[in-house]
Amino acid sequence: MIPVVKTIDEVRNYVKAWRREGRTVGLVPTMGFLHEGHRSLIENDCVVVSDFVNPTQFAPNEDFETYPRDIEADAALCESAGAKLIFNPEPSEMYHDALTTVSVDKITKVLCGKTRPIHFNGVCTVVSKLFNIVMPDRAYFGQKDAQQLCVVKKMVKDLNFDIEIVGCPIIREKDGLAKSSRNTYLNAAERKAALCLARALSTGRKMICDGEKDTERVADAIRAEIEREPLARIDYVEIVDLDTLEPARDASSHILAAVAVYIGKTRLIDNFIID
Amino acid sequence: MIPVVKTIDEVRNYVKAWRREGRTVGLVPTMGFLHEGHRSLIENDCVVVSDFVNPTQFAPNEDFETYPRDIEADAALCESAGAKLIFNPEPSEMYHDALTTVSVDKITKVLCGKTRPIHFNGVCTVVSKLFNIVMPDRAYFGQKDAQQLCVVKKMVKDLNFDIEIVGCPIIREKDGLAKSSRNTYLNAAERKAALCLARALSTGRKMICDGEKDTERVADAIRAEIEREPLARIDYVEIVDLDTLEPARDASSHILAAVAVYIGKTRLIDNFIID
Repeated sequence: MIPVVKTIDEVRNYVKAWRREGRTVGLVPTMGFLHEGHRSLIENDCVVVSDFVNPTQFAPNEDFETYPRDIEADAALCESAGAKLIFNPEPSEMYHDALTTVSVDKITKVLCGKTRPIHFNGVCTVVSKLFNIVMPDRAYFGQKDAQQLCVVKKMVKDLNFDIEIVGCPIIREKDGLAKSSRNTYLNAAERKAALCLARALSTGRKMICDGEKDTERVADAIRAEIEREPLARIDYVEIVDLDTLEPARDASSHILAAVAVYIGKTRLIDNFIID
Repeated sequence: MIPVVKTIDEVRNYVKAWRREGRTVGLVPTMGFLHEGHRSLIENDCVVVSDFVNPTQFAPNEDFETYPRDIEADAALCESAGAKLIFNPEPSEMYHDALTTVSVDKITKVLCGKTRPIHFNGVCTVVSKLFNIVMPDRAYFGQKDAQQLCVVKKMVKDLNFDIEIVGCPIIREKDGLAKSSRNTYLNAAERKAALCLARALSTGRKMICDGEKDTERVADAIRAEIEREPLARIDYVEIVDLDTLEPARDASSHILAAVAVYIGKTRLIDNFIID
């Protein structure tokens, strides 16, 4: 059975033993409640999955308390995916009178950063800690959280972490909904309504593939498609440069089209990239 | 002759070669213009001395431009002290469109942080970068910069850097002045006046050794001694808890007595610790 450890020292002991054997080490940072999207992040070297609902990336009005947790199911998924270790610390193992924050400017102020102003500070700080605890060769992040991937890549470059960041494609349900632990919040009607995100993005992507270069027209079409869904309330629909996350004019290359939409009380995100 | 390298890749190649030989690696982060205080930080394992006047820890009104530099003399000192490598990057090797900051709250807002509000952000960020570049087993910091040592220790703990921070005693000139690259700014009269820092701290330490427990009375005596020197202008004289840097009441244990004093235009610091 895959070991589930609670302490930083145990993680370090496992990783040091692997290093002595000359093995490479991967890290998949997650908040648990794993799904097939997470499974796709687990490759073939010695992979540590961290399974930690990080309190510092949730604002007081957000869903830290209700975020779904299921460590037994997570352990089963990790084991079947070939991971070697789960790190499932208590918050007290990760934070005691901490005063240190890792922050990234500019690219954290747009998109999700507008409605979640402290979120990326929490992400960058906990990811830095996990990097220093596991010291992996590679770390895996889903492209579903495209802004997070962009921010982590920038942080790694700026702080000279000697770690390769691997972005992994979005995994979807059969009907197109992007896999997310937060999908469990949706009731039957909302679950159906939630399809508007993928449908709208699909419309936008098709426009660009058909030659539309004007990002405003593409964004308008995405917005219009989502607004047809009565249970949906748009947080943002934006088409931005893939690196700077600044508004892009030309939709034909190096862009991220990202949406955040409330379906009832549940905030969902989805996106596509044109490289 | 000791290699002086300019790029991050070269540092990593040296360190990886040492690691393959099973050797331990030390880091001495400096701003160059080395003196005997720095020499005492260089121990017997493979020591990298980083020699970089870090622009991000200087405010626009501070002495970044005039800070003394002498890489040839530094190389000679490092070689004679037994260091293995000098990392002397250009600012462009360390920063290009960087957006990431590592910051430590509370303990950076007091003492030197009051007059140098951005200083410790710059220190923490560049030290994080150097830690990730060199990945040393141990890093050496002089106790002369006692607040910096305290801040770096806290950052290492909070971010789980797997690095031992070694604090090294203050090295003094024969007449008592704490060694500092900034001592070169002093003219002859100022050089003599600068002795008031060590003299005042010595008075304070003697009071505590003789049984005085009231930090206010000790601080007042230190202040009075410095104020007798016409060329001196006090920035602060404080006696604080060694970990929290909050004002201490009982002078008899676990305190840092720290002073910052302008001698002419040159700001000097000095301190003593009672553990």
